Amino acid sequence: MKGKFITFEGGEGVGKSTQVRLLMEYLEKTAQPAVLVRQPGGTPVAEKIRDILLSPESVDMTPECEAYLYAAARAQLLKQAVIPALSEGKIVICDRHLDSSLAYQGAGRGLGIDEVEKLNETAVKDCPVDATIFIDLPHDKMFRSLKKAAEMGDRFEVETDDFHKRVYEGFSEIAKKYPDRIIRIVPCESKSDTSEKIIGALRDRGLIK
Amino acid sequence: MKGKFITFEGGEGVGKSTQVRLLMEYLEKTAQPAVLVRQPGGTPVAEKIRDILLSPESVDMTPECEAYLYAAARAQLLKQAVIPALSEGKIVICDRHLDSSLAYQGAGRGLGIDEVEKLNETAVKDCPVDATIFIDLPHDKMFRSLKKAAEMGDRFEVETDDFHKRVYEGFSEIAKKYPDRIIRIVPCESKSDTSEKIIGALRDRGLIK
Repeated sequence: MKGKFITFEGGEGVGKSTQVRLLMEYLEKTAQPAVLVRQPGGTPVAEKIRDILLSPESVDMTPECEAYLYAAARAQLLKQAVIPALSEGKIVICDRHLDSSLAYQGAGRGLGIDEVEKLNETAVKDCPVDATIFIDLPHDKMFRSLKKAAEMGDRFEVETDDFHKRVYEGFSEIAKKYPDRIIRIVPCESKSDTSEKIIGALRDRGLIK
Repeated sequence: MKGKFITFEGGEGVGKSTQVRLLMEYLEKTAQPAVLVRQPGGTPVAEKIRDILLSPESVDMTPECEAYLYAAARAQLLKQAVIPALSEGKIVICDRHLDSSLAYQGAGRGLGIDEVEKLNETAVKDCPVDATIFIDLPHDKMFRSLKKAAEMGDRFEVETDDFHKRVYEGFSEIAKKYPDRIIRIVPCESKSDTSEKIIGALRDRGLIK
């Protein structure tokens, strides 16, 4: 495929969405055609799946069901939005992808990273990731307090500290497992400094100009 | 587990739901505690997944997404309803299960039977099936015409003849692959004769009294 597929990963409240936005602004300013998508969601079917996943009503959802629903939304988004954009030569920026399932359902929910990776094979096999920005901020140093997030409250933001600790350790393990693909970014005090680090890393790899 | 897990499989319009009902009536009359569930569905989360799957709005759903959504609903139903009932020693009758995914998404949609089986491993591994009644009626001999079904219209009933032919061939292949588990029942002219065949086969195996 002619385009580049770049994913962003990390725990809750690490400033991921801000960094995605700053990268999109840079790509626009420098006239590099780019598309932003998020998981779960991004197509009508995948947004319906997102509603089930994040609804507080789904409190008794099993970890297995949760893992399959993420894979379902992922498969739909890749085929309907990501692969077509990559074929047109665009840069596709994805706010969360497979690594989030490995960290959240694999490590956080305890299904196991390898098991969730195997479960996702059908979803991701036609669409390899060129690089992943992992915003590496331990769960106890989140920028946005979980308490505040809980007031806004989707099912993940209200999880326990222990859950978010396991998720963070999961991300760290995955970063070690795939050192070629995953770029570990320790965030700076200033958002724009962090953004410069990310843009620099992606330029060094020739993924963006 | 103390109970027995019995699944019913077959194409559209083969009289499967009628046979499930007749078996449930027999179990009730003979005072054998039994639970009836259907896939996709059977729990609040799984029913929401069912809505997405069967909605005519989901016309552009990819085969991969479809396979994952069925697996998600399956995982939820098994853990929340089937396994608890089996632990209580009940007979659980399930209207469609894994073989439907293998036949519909694997053979019908072309994902491949082995691929869909692998994708479902996490969903089904804790809950083996004791016996499967496969109502073996070739797609061109369905009792209920597809045209009539199309008027009622979920996404599967409006599929082409060719699709239903592939599904039937898929079921036949699976029946050959798992001869110990799958009981092939060729339906008779009369519904009650078919029901007697099914009850006889399950009694012979010691699964019901």
